[in-house]
Amino acid sequence: MDLPQGVPPAQLLKVLILGAGNFGSCLADHLAEVDHTVYIWSREADVVEGLNKTHRNPKYLTDHTFLQSITAIGPEFPDAEILNHVDVILFAIPTQGLRETLVKVRAGLNSKEQLPLFIFVNKGIEVETQELPLEIIADTCGVDVARVATFVSGPSFAKEIVRRQPTTVSVASLSPEHAQRTSDLFHQPWFRCYTNPDPVGVELAGALKNVYAIASGIADGMGYENNTRADTGLITRSLAEMTRVGTSYGASPLTFLSLAGVGDLFLTCSSTTSRNFTVGRRLGQGEDLDYIIKTLGSVAEGVTTSKALHIILEKLEVKAPIAEGVYAVLYGGRSAKEMAGELMSLPPLSEIDLPVHISKPVRALMKKLGIKEGDLSPRASVLSTIGPD
Amino acid sequence: MDLPQGVPPAQLLKVLILGAGNFGSCLADHLAEVDHTVYIWSREADVVEGLNKTHRNPKYLTDHTFLQSITAIGPEFPDAEILNHVDVILFAIPTQGLRETLVKVRAGLNSKEQLPLFIFVNKGIEVETQELPLEIIADTCGVDVARVATFVSGPSFAKEIVRRQPTTVSVASLSPEHAQRTSDLFHQPWFRCYTNPDPVGVELAGALKNVYAIASGIADGMGYENNTRADTGLITRSLAEMTRVGTSYGASPLTFLSLAGVGDLFLTCSSTTSRNFTVGRRLGQGEDLDYIIKTLGSVAEGVTTSKALHIILEKLEVKAPIAEGVYAVLYGGRSAKEMAGELMSLPPLSEIDLPVHISKPVRALMKKLGIKEGDLSPRASVLSTIGPD
Repeated sequence: MDLPQGVPPAQLLKVLILGAGNFGSCLADHLAEVDHTVYIWSREADVVEGLNKTHRNPKYLTDHTFLQSITAIGPEFPDAEILNHVDVILFAIPTQGLRETLVKVRAGLNSKEQLPLFIFVNKGIEVETQELPLEIIADTCGVDVARVATFVSGPSFAKEIVRRQPTTVSVASLSPEHAQRTSDLFHQPWFRCYTNPDPVGVELAGALKNVYAIASGIADGMGYENNTRADTGLITRSLAEMTRVGTSYGASPLTFLSLAGVGDLFLTCSSTTSRNFTVGRRLGQGEDLDYIIKTLGSVAEGVTTSKALHIILEKLEVKAPIAEGVYAVLYGGRSAKEMAGELMSLPPLSEIDLPVHISKPVRALMKKLGIKEGDLSPRASVLSTIGPD
Repeated sequence: MDLPQGVPPAQLLKVLILGAGNFGSCLADHLAEVDHTVYIWSREADVVEGLNKTHRNPKYLTDHTFLQSITAIGPEFPDAEILNHVDVILFAIPTQGLRETLVKVRAGLNSKEQLPLFIFVNKGIEVETQELPLEIIADTCGVDVARVATFVSGPSFAKEIVRRQPTTVSVASLSPEHAQRTSDLFHQPWFRCYTNPDPVGVELAGALKNVYAIASGIADGMGYENNTRADTGLITRSLAEMTRVGTSYGASPLTFLSLAGVGDLFLTCSSTTSRNFTVGRRLGQGEDLDYIIKTLGSVAEGVTTSKALHIILEKLEVKAPIAEGVYAVLYGGRSAKEMAGELMSLPPLSEIDLPVHISKPVRALMKKLGIKEGDLSPRASVLSTIGPD
């Protein structure tokens, strides 16, 4: 198959990528390809040396030769000179390390000049505080930065992006202008960006999907036959549940129809090689969680997110039987069989059962972000747009 | 794996199933299992004889032994006696034959008595008129019947239902009471029903998904690597497009989050053995449509639906580049490669771009059904429910 041709960007920018894992590395190549100036920071000296000398990342996408124009920096954290030199800072680090990194970035940035564009590709909830990246940004860099931060999320695999396989992502920000700037930066025929005004929904979907991937894995491990690779029915019901939780959190229900919502959920729940799915499958086959974690060799994010989500669900007072079932199997001593039996014996329900009100904890979040409801969530505006004329 | 235990229904009913294909047959077994009285009509004498004498269907689900309590009738169409004897008439026949069948049913029913519950499991658009089953019912049996008709749709395979593999479906009706009655009839631990107030959305989704399955097949045939079995990104964008078309048609955007919406779409677009996907894959590999149809041995519903949808899209004046791309490849002499190139070179877009107004043709449908907008679509009520308090 012919590779599609790249389109020159309207503006050439200087981009600093923080984190040289799978996603940070592939985006470095993606941006350097169309002549943006790309710096990529890694905390690992061998990764920095590999990228600069042999143009290989020794840990991630190890088969790929990166463009020579990419400059790797580190292992020391980027200094004020580079932080104030770039137009874009792209955060490609795990959510659990985000707070600490943002504090360093904020300290290094010259506060009087125009701030660079902040783009985040990490997903998840900070387990200790149950906060979304948007809230962590507000805590560390202030409300003004949070309101223009942009989040890129969707059903994407780094190894496909470097091969120019068609990829589609959601680009979400409270600021339409900043979402558009981010979309303009990344958009190429093989990397299509769709702007979205609902960062809360996009971030929640990215975190919650890992919990539902465990549920899909459990069903698989118990021997239920699957309509596709994963159980489409269970995933669709997971989507309805995720939409209910998200709406209660102030997100737009329509966001769950997006690439970051349903797109990423279906991909994650049907990736039988993923860590979250694997944890679920082994639980479904009757293995013990401690033993699974000990032998898995790496952390499955859904296992920790499930704990944070359980606390969030209690605060939101919203029904989420699938997520609570996963929590009960992981932490409540219930067997997968008991959980499946309980889920299957629930009475018939209304299909899309959304909460009437945004919950109290979310009103507190809005207050913290210093914004009105209509600004946080596109819900009100979307709803008035499509209401009867 | 243990099979789940059935739950006795609150009320035992007499059910006539019209059509003994895959889905009609499996539902006969499903209902007879919990002691409903089941009659199933087939126009084929050998199917009637097989079901009554050996309890096998010689054409569909041929490995399965059906319950002896099922009574097959035919090949003559059921007479007035049986039509007026039953509590439920379940239509499991192709949409293209629905109008003719409804005329016969209506003629046989005693109009003075209470009508049986009308349940429809067929999907699709009547190609000649571009009408949905709901409109065909109104044409043939009157508005009162259309307003209480119930539609069952979702990601389900007949061969899994007879093995009590977990199945989940949407049960949609303009009448919540009738949706609940249908849900009560079918609901079992392994066959979960979710009621939905939006039959227009459920029916449109069931028809349109076959067109998008062709698009998924085309991408596969062209050699694009797929994130899951099908391209999650393309399917998600198909979902956004389907939602835009449906909303313009008067459906609720939330219906596309349902089992009949996203659930069935993902299942159909990732079923590499399905006829629609196969047509697409062979088009993507450069084969000629006439040759594909000649050698396929059976009709792929999406091929005809694409033609009806093209006319509908012109009337609705709604953008649907993926569906129009499929139409251009099927009927416009465009190659799959040209279509893919055009789709990939579209400018960056807003992610969920719904129409502002319900289109004029749909207002005509509403008038035909004799109902107000708020009655046809749950949109207004859903939207007011989840609006800011």
